[in-house]
Amino acid sequence: MPTPAELRAAVDDYLTAMNTNDRERYVSLYTIDATIEDPVGSDVVRGHDSIREWWDLVHSLADTIELVPTGPVRVAGREVAFPFQAVATTDGEQRVADIIDVMEFDDDRRIVGMRAFWDPAEARPKQG
Amino acid sequence: MPTPAELRAAVDDYLTAMNTNDRERYVSLYTIDATIEDPVGSDVVRGHDSIREWWDLVHSLADTIELVPTGPVRVAGREVAFPFQAVATTDGEQRVADIIDVMEFDDDRRIVGMRAFWDPAEARPKQG
Repeated sequence: MPTPAELRAAVDDYLTAMNTNDRERYVSLYTIDATIEDPVGSDVVRGHDSIREWWDLVHSLADTIELVPTGPVRVAGREVAFPFQAVATTDGEQRVADIIDVMEFDDDRRIVGMRAFWDPAEARPKQG
Repeated sequence: MPTPAELRAAVDDYLTAMNTNDRERYVSLYTIDATIEDPVGSDVVRGHDSIREWWDLVHSLADTIELVPTGPVRVAGREVAFPFQAVATTDGEQRVADIIDVMEFDDDRRIVGMRAFWDPAEARPKQG
């Protein structure tokens, strides 16, 4: 089983892939048949090709997306949960959403499943 | 399906039940066959009687346990995730742990399942 330090490093990789807008690095963090449920309650995306389509859709909605951690990564067994804000910038306007991601990893520290807890209706203009 | 406002109120009830040390109120927030996995990766507790035993075990380890929110409740469909610190006081000494709880609710706003993401090895003396 991955160590807590390894899982924290995997979360760092995840944030870096998103924040450097690196789709292929992002996809490589997932197992071949991994699932994404973002937001929780919506249709599940499965597999690398579908994750690429999902990435493209998300990134068609904003010029840039930055994930800013707002607290420590909680590691529990082979799963993690961590809080952050997503800041989406479009034509210079920024919107922010509070999100908690939950991820399960395999023995190779690849993501088996990711679930994002947030409510798109709660997204709001970024202050300051 | 419960509204986001109703689920936020249910989380408030949960925190109040724990912070007022009210076991029966706490148990009443769960469906009759609800599950608790705390921490994630440990054995699952199922049903009101087992939840009572779990409560008693947890509270045998500390004089008081206080849950202090550290960020907003994320609502997604019929599930929530929220970050907090648990502060356990024993013989005047305080230890703190960073936790994220994930809960699923039924239509009556009862908890169907609770999973607590944290690592007991990360608990530490409270500073200040």
